[in-house]
Amino acid sequence: MEGKKVTLRDLALKAGLSVNTISRALKDKEDIALSTRKTIKDLAKEMGYVGNALAGSLRSGLTKTIAVIVSDVANPHFGIMVKDIEKSARKHNYTIFVINTEDEHEMEERAIYTAIGKNVDGIIICPSQRSAETIRILKKNGVPFVLIGRRFEEEPDFDYVICDDEKGGYLATKHLLDNGHKRVLFLNGPDRISSARERLDGYRRAHREAGLPVSGELIIEVGASAGDTRQIVKGLIERKADFTGLFAFNDVIAWEAAYVLQKYGFRVPEDYAVVGFDNIQSRLFIPFQLSSVSNSKGKMSKRAVDIVLHKINHPDSRERFREVIDTTLILRESTK
Amino acid sequence: MEGKKVTLRDLALKAGLSVNTISRALKDKEDIALSTRKTIKDLAKEMGYVGNALAGSLRSGLTKTIAVIVSDVANPHFGIMVKDIEKSARKHNYTIFVINTEDEHEMEERAIYTAIGKNVDGIIICPSQRSAETIRILKKNGVPFVLIGRRFEEEPDFDYVICDDEKGGYLATKHLLDNGHKRVLFLNGPDRISSARERLDGYRRAHREAGLPVSGELIIEVGASAGDTRQIVKGLIERKADFTGLFAFNDVIAWEAAYVLQKYGFRVPEDYAVVGFDNIQSRLFIPFQLSSVSNSKGKMSKRAVDIVLHKINHPDSRERFREVIDTTLILRESTK
Repeated sequence: MEGKKVTLRDLALKAGLSVNTISRALKDKEDIALSTRKTIKDLAKEMGYVGNALAGSLRSGLTKTIAVIVSDVANPHFGIMVKDIEKSARKHNYTIFVINTEDEHEMEERAIYTAIGKNVDGIIICPSQRSAETIRILKKNGVPFVLIGRRFEEEPDFDYVICDDEKGGYLATKHLLDNGHKRVLFLNGPDRISSARERLDGYRRAHREAGLPVSGELIIEVGASAGDTRQIVKGLIERKADFTGLFAFNDVIAWEAAYVLQKYGFRVPEDYAVVGFDNIQSRLFIPFQLSSVSNSKGKMSKRAVDIVLHKINHPDSRERFREVIDTTLILRESTK
Repeated sequence: MEGKKVTLRDLALKAGLSVNTISRALKDKEDIALSTRKTIKDLAKEMGYVGNALAGSLRSGLTKTIAVIVSDVANPHFGIMVKDIEKSARKHNYTIFVINTEDEHEMEERAIYTAIGKNVDGIIICPSQRSAETIRILKKNGVPFVLIGRRFEEEPDFDYVICDDEKGGYLATKHLLDNGHKRVLFLNGPDRISSARERLDGYRRAHREAGLPVSGELIIEVGASAGDTRQIVKGLIERKADFTGLFAFNDVIAWEAAYVLQKYGFRVPEDYAVVGFDNIQSRLFIPFQLSSVSNSKGKMSKRAVDIVLHKINHPDSRERFREVIDTTLILRESTK
């Protein structure tokens, strides 16, 4: 019996019953005796019968699966968010699977095609924002979806859950400025990403309120992948760039920057004060006390699941979701 | 046209051609004029036609997807491994998707049922080892799979790629003993997991060779999830447990232990020397220089993909794969 997907026919042969009886027993139809149903279910379990998810879906119209498409599964921020999404989805008897895009256009397109091809009921996606075209494929195919963490301002049809990125950028920068750091380096994400643009708006607002100028040379875009920050911070140290505060687009970048500063013999926070974004420390205990902007991953994840399930269950609803979750600044030793 | 999955029929209606012509054009059949093929492909792209992965699979027999089932997607070790698996798979034009199990039996079973239901060609799984039954479902359904990171000694049929856990445990412990730490606390993973048992074998061998006794009270099982270690290390500090070296089952546990030690005012490595396992530092730059056992995630991931593809492409092969990748100890400041 090994080596091929177990079918209803296999069960029928083994049990000496008709395929119809087996099928009705597995569906718990009452015209089949309770004891027979139990025998058949035990047999199905013993033989490893999986059923056919697609056949099931043709009946109910739903596969009870959601695809979660993220930009970097090696960043603990996304790992934690995926766990939170899963926890919420599980309460509704949904299984999730994750596809990684590396924030690349081609991989994102493939991820979307794969998810649709696997007949998921809905998609939660952190878009690369290299193009709105990939997301439009979802629209065209009528797949319920919600963006998480990033939004397309020019696409009012794309529902989203984000955090208050502008406020986060503002709080982090204001804290550094208030503590006497007149020159705050901002290691930001790529400008195509809405959250990078909005955090920069907050950085600017904090400077404006403090009556301080924003120096273009202190705003540097770093690639999202590990290692990019290293080169940039090395370069800054070697040419003795003038800054004492550092605000990073995310915790991974902040860690990497602090790592390089330490390698060069500088101390955090005595020589440089560092603030990150994502507050990973609340869920993964790193022996480096990084101050960071909390974006309530738990809340964002829960809302994303609620929204996508609402859209799955109310396909004709015209309701629009544009949710912005509050951000707060969590102070730790890296800015003391 | 929006709001429903785009079909061949939609394309045919729009193009004013037959479904058969559309279908043959998309398959690049030469009886359709090159210019027509191009027009139809452009139209398909414009309309967001995704095709039907299952229909495609019925023709080729393959869906070109692999499921990767891991125990904790929030542990950067798994995030990095997933990226490496994806990189290798992509070279063979395969897409992967990830399902998280939290090392729980029910979630693992569901993950396996979901993967089979989605008609993946193969599965790479880090098993929870709560039961071999879940893995047997794969066998019974003839789904090509390979275990990664853990093995079932009593199941010679389950192919695997692991690292040399015994050697890793030996090297880490020996290094601490050689540096004068006579009492080495081992925060190990659960005993049901093969890698935990094998790392403990290595811990024992290092003690044996050094002529030192193994103290049962220094071997403590911690849960794999974040937060468990905290309670345990707090308890040890508060009751002034006698140890100066600390070896952890993985880097996440080592970080968390060092975090608690620092919270209590202890210094690493001056007061306690700490060694982790997984060498995450090689790919994620944390401003805490943790000595760690490298298990060559890149090599393990690549071999897992090679093996599962081999099994997919040679369904009748009886070849067995039992691969053990070498481990090395990477020394950093946490043990200086």
